[in-house]
Amino acid sequence: MSNSVAPLPVTSMDIDAAARVLAPFAIRTPLLSSPALDERVGAKVFLKPEMLQRTGSFKFRGAFNKLSSIPQEARGGGVVAFSSGNHAQGVAAAAQILNMRATIVMPADAPRSKRERTKGYGAEVVLYDRDREDREAIAGDIARKHGATLVRPYDDLKVIAGQGTVGREIAEDLAMLGVTPDIVVAPASGGGLVAGVATAIKARYPQAVLMSAEPEGFDDHARSLRAGKREPHHAEGRTICDALMATVPGEITFAINQRLLTQGVTASDAEVGAAVAFVFREFKLVVEPGGAVGLAALLAGHIEAHGKTIVIVLSGGNVDADLYARLVA
Amino acid sequence: MSNSVAPLPVTSMDIDAAARVLAPFAIRTPLLSSPALDERVGAKVFLKPEMLQRTGSFKFRGAFNKLSSIPQEARGGGVVAFSSGNHAQGVAAAAQILNMRATIVMPADAPRSKRERTKGYGAEVVLYDRDREDREAIAGDIARKHGATLVRPYDDLKVIAGQGTVGREIAEDLAMLGVTPDIVVAPASGGGLVAGVATAIKARYPQAVLMSAEPEGFDDHARSLRAGKREPHHAEGRTICDALMATVPGEITFAINQRLLTQGVTASDAEVGAAVAFVFREFKLVVEPGGAVGLAALLAGHIEAHGKTIVIVLSGGNVDADLYARLVA
Repeated sequence: MSNSVAPLPVTSMDIDAAARVLAPFAIRTPLLSSPALDERVGAKVFLKPEMLQRTGSFKFRGAFNKLSSIPQEARGGGVVAFSSGNHAQGVAAAAQILNMRATIVMPADAPRSKRERTKGYGAEVVLYDRDREDREAIAGDIARKHGATLVRPYDDLKVIAGQGTVGREIAEDLAMLGVTPDIVVAPASGGGLVAGVATAIKARYPQAVLMSAEPEGFDDHARSLRAGKREPHHAEGRTICDALMATVPGEITFAINQRLLTQGVTASDAEVGAAVAFVFREFKLVVEPGGAVGLAALLAGHIEAHGKTIVIVLSGGNVDADLYARLVA
Repeated sequence: MSNSVAPLPVTSMDIDAAARVLAPFAIRTPLLSSPALDERVGAKVFLKPEMLQRTGSFKFRGAFNKLSSIPQEARGGGVVAFSSGNHAQGVAAAAQILNMRATIVMPADAPRSKRERTKGYGAEVVLYDRDREDREAIAGDIARKHGATLVRPYDDLKVIAGQGTVGREIAEDLAMLGVTPDIVVAPASGGGLVAGVATAIKARYPQAVLMSAEPEGFDDHARSLRAGKREPHHAEGRTICDALMATVPGEITFAINQRLLTQGVTASDAEVGAAVAFVFREFKLVVEPGGAVGLAALLAGHIEAHGKTIVIVLSGGNVDADLYARLVA
């Protein structure tokens, strides 16, 4: 516990600075609620709909904050990133705004919509085999060849601070409503979103309980938080939550999450599918499976929320039309 | 033109009053934009996403404002309404909040989701045959039998003022952004939404051009605006825009729209389907066909918007999952 008094690597002031950088370019997403949802879970529930963010997920925030921090003299080499999809779009869109060249290394099985949208933002897409090739090595090669800056999806202070603006907006909106959150839940893959959100929420509401949400089996955050150290998950197959397949928490993100998160929760693919359909019916929002995992855990009864005020981040909406049609029909 | 100086039946002060009544209960929907949409149409486009409104459409606004105006001594008899779906849900939800009994007369071919959700708000649903029975007569009978107040879907001053809060929020948000609208478009069935929106927009931006949007063939507003008097449409079949099948503009609404609207635009079912899919992909929002008709007209090139600032109301998101899955897949 000796490190519990050491400063965290990202502070709420870093997030304030990111908010200023993002203000002209990012969408300030609202905080939504529904009597039907409140009644169903017996709690006051707020959803933060990050599918309404530019590029359809929160990832634009971290990517734009990171790219904006690259010194002018280094921008000529462009940027390179590896991503299953949402980070790819975030980096590509940020690079387009800042007039930088972007190369994105994506798994060949990433949803088609995510590949096409990444190209749509003007990025070059390089595909790799998720099971046999090392995306970090491929991205590293490209970075060396082009003199490009590698933009990591989560283990980066500027990226975490950018994602933290999600939590900052939640805290601002709750304060305006005069509401204090008991529980705040965000999906976790590498853990950058939940680390940033936790930092911003805890700065204003130190008593709030922060939780990561993951697909059943892909529960490296839940395991790591229990173990007190970074542990991989043991899943071998796939999940419909294509955005949440990182095998182990990030180093920087876990240093934050270990201090600020209370636990990790999980939901099965079936529970996630039901949550996607619920959000279609009750909120008229398109949430992708990975973006719905926190709400899925809540709806399935895996979070003790009765009588409490709970905020759930819906982290994105980039889902292939065919899968989406199957989940809602 | 002699009546062009007579006062309009609904004023911006009526809409201000409705906004105060609605504030604790209605959702203040945001104003959304997307670089992809702006680029595609060569204009600055803002969408008003009323599918995010309570009950999934703007109709809650007018219904709640109307029900709130019923004197306490008349509330015991409850309310009755006829509606193809969205007004039904608006009235049912408003009645539930105000502890009033609601009976809703719905066409037997209304989307299942709309029927079920209306019952979900605690209303009694009475079905009728759209081609052979007179919904006004059925509702009138129920009103007499129960001593219920009939809540008309559009030809009512309180309903129009409630819908006008959509336009009031648009005007407020545009003012905050420092943007002046050139064109504002809203779907029209009986014309209550576009009448209220036009009243609110014109109060702040008298130069703005207001347009109604209708499904191709179901173009009674477009015809009536051209003719200078209420004209029915000549369509005999169906449209996927189930919310927009009224045969002739309302009397009160047309008295307003004739003064404030410049023209009516239309879009085919195929163009509407493409707009529904566009909103799924680019905005991650679920819009129902009728709610997308204005955007469909814009995307199909039926509105001369190049270089202009245009606001489009997406009026609702209550669409059956099967149809929605077909349209986006």
